[in-house]
Amino acid sequence: MKEDKFYIYGRNSVTEALNSDIFIEKIYIQYNTSGESIFRIQKIANKKKIPLVQYDKHKFAELAKNVAGESAITQGVIALRSVVKYLDLEELSELAFSQDKNPVLVLLNEISDVHNLGAIARSAECMGAQGLIIPERNSSPVTPAAVKSSAGALSYIPVAKTGSVINTLIKLRDLGYWIIAADMDGDKNYFDEDFNKPVVLIIGSEGKGISPAVQKYCDIKIKIPMNGRISSLNASVSAGIILFDILRQRLKNQ
Amino acid sequence: MKEDKFYIYGRNSVTEALNSDIFIEKIYIQYNTSGESIFRIQKIANKKKIPLVQYDKHKFAELAKNVAGESAITQGVIALRSVVKYLDLEELSELAFSQDKNPVLVLLNEISDVHNLGAIARSAECMGAQGLIIPERNSSPVTPAAVKSSAGALSYIPVAKTGSVINTLIKLRDLGYWIIAADMDGDKNYFDEDFNKPVVLIIGSEGKGISPAVQKYCDIKIKIPMNGRISSLNASVSAGIILFDILRQRLKNQ
Repeated sequence: MKEDKFYIYGRNSVTEALNSDIFIEKIYIQYNTSGESIFRIQKIANKKKIPLVQYDKHKFAELAKNVAGESAITQGVIALRSVVKYLDLEELSELAFSQDKNPVLVLLNEISDVHNLGAIARSAECMGAQGLIIPERNSSPVTPAAVKSSAGALSYIPVAKTGSVINTLIKLRDLGYWIIAADMDGDKNYFDEDFNKPVVLIIGSEGKGISPAVQKYCDIKIKIPMNGRISSLNASVSAGIILFDILRQRLKNQ
Repeated sequence: MKEDKFYIYGRNSVTEALNSDIFIEKIYIQYNTSGESIFRIQKIANKKKIPLVQYDKHKFAELAKNVAGESAITQGVIALRSVVKYLDLEELSELAFSQDKNPVLVLLNEISDVHNLGAIARSAECMGAQGLIIPERNSSPVTPAAVKSSAGALSYIPVAKTGSVINTLIKLRDLGYWIIAADMDGDKNYFDEDFNKPVVLIIGSEGKGISPAVQKYCDIKIKIPMNGRISSLNASVSAGIILFDILRQRLKNQ
């Protein structure tokens, strides 16, 4: 099987990987690539719910060059191996409650920038959060670049990958968590919320924030007060501020 | 004068710029470039205390390509214009006290990464800090990339550029500030410090922290408590956590 640490390429190699217990994060296919073997790859990927992405010739060539080298024969297909081991939501929650009666989980809502993903994971791990939840849609996959940005945190902190954000929030509420959204239009300042309970903190993307549909399933909406002329923090800085206020409150309450 | 928005290149153009009131941040010279005009540029730069950097042929060619285009004639010299207008330390302090009886200044100690510089500026501006202090040695210059990372904050927040960190701290103490260093080996948690006074917050680089020589001139050393397996936050996240705790304390005290 042709592969480097994170990427597997070539039709046979990717098919073999799909039929093994290697966890595949994403499959990149060059647009207009066809044939029986590609069709088989697409079929298995769909069955295993692995996202397939089509790249045009130029973008695919760039990816191939970066991950496999100038002269590699990818046959129009590259698979990204999972860098982390994913848990399902129930496993993650069970693990979290076994560590702390008031666990902290961080849900990344459409964080599409790998560096933001990495930086949030780093702050969450440093703060002692029990896990990350990454809904698949519009989220950055956990790439080697994300692991690097996380300063290794993604190798330690457990991660659950889920489907619809709303179904995830309904399940989490059933599991006993308070759903807390950080948003510019929050109802109260973050430091006025008592975090001494099981919490899921939702961090939205910088540009778009958290959609009204998702906000409906949140118990509490908090904001970070601002005092300058620009009033939008980097998503990873916002996450850091709130996560460490949770830790501050808990240390104060001991 | 040949120039784009931020870079000026070519021997005559750079000399002209140096003799005008355009503020130059840094001058890049290709290693082994010589001649009367280069000597003159070096002489004026030294007199004006503008840092000169020598780049080898390969590195210089890359810079030239990025800032001036493939076919530009740089004659081995490129000047970076200041993107921000700098104040001197006394001006910055005076402005700060005119805005708040307890101003907040952020001193970047050897922050060499432009994105960290930009991200810290963004958090500082959002929080309402009165200014940034950038000691020249080992600091990233304020490049267009830093401005972009700051989400525009560097166009609003006043910046002072200073020489020796220690002299700067001595002056700041005389001006009435408490010098507070954020360091992994700090004596107390940041939230146990009362920030209702004029403060200068020193943020060090991720790798190296704050040197013992500089620490001697600090009044207070604070730390961010950690609860995970990795225990180092990104410099811009650390800055955000402490800056927003200063704002939290002030809002609570109103």
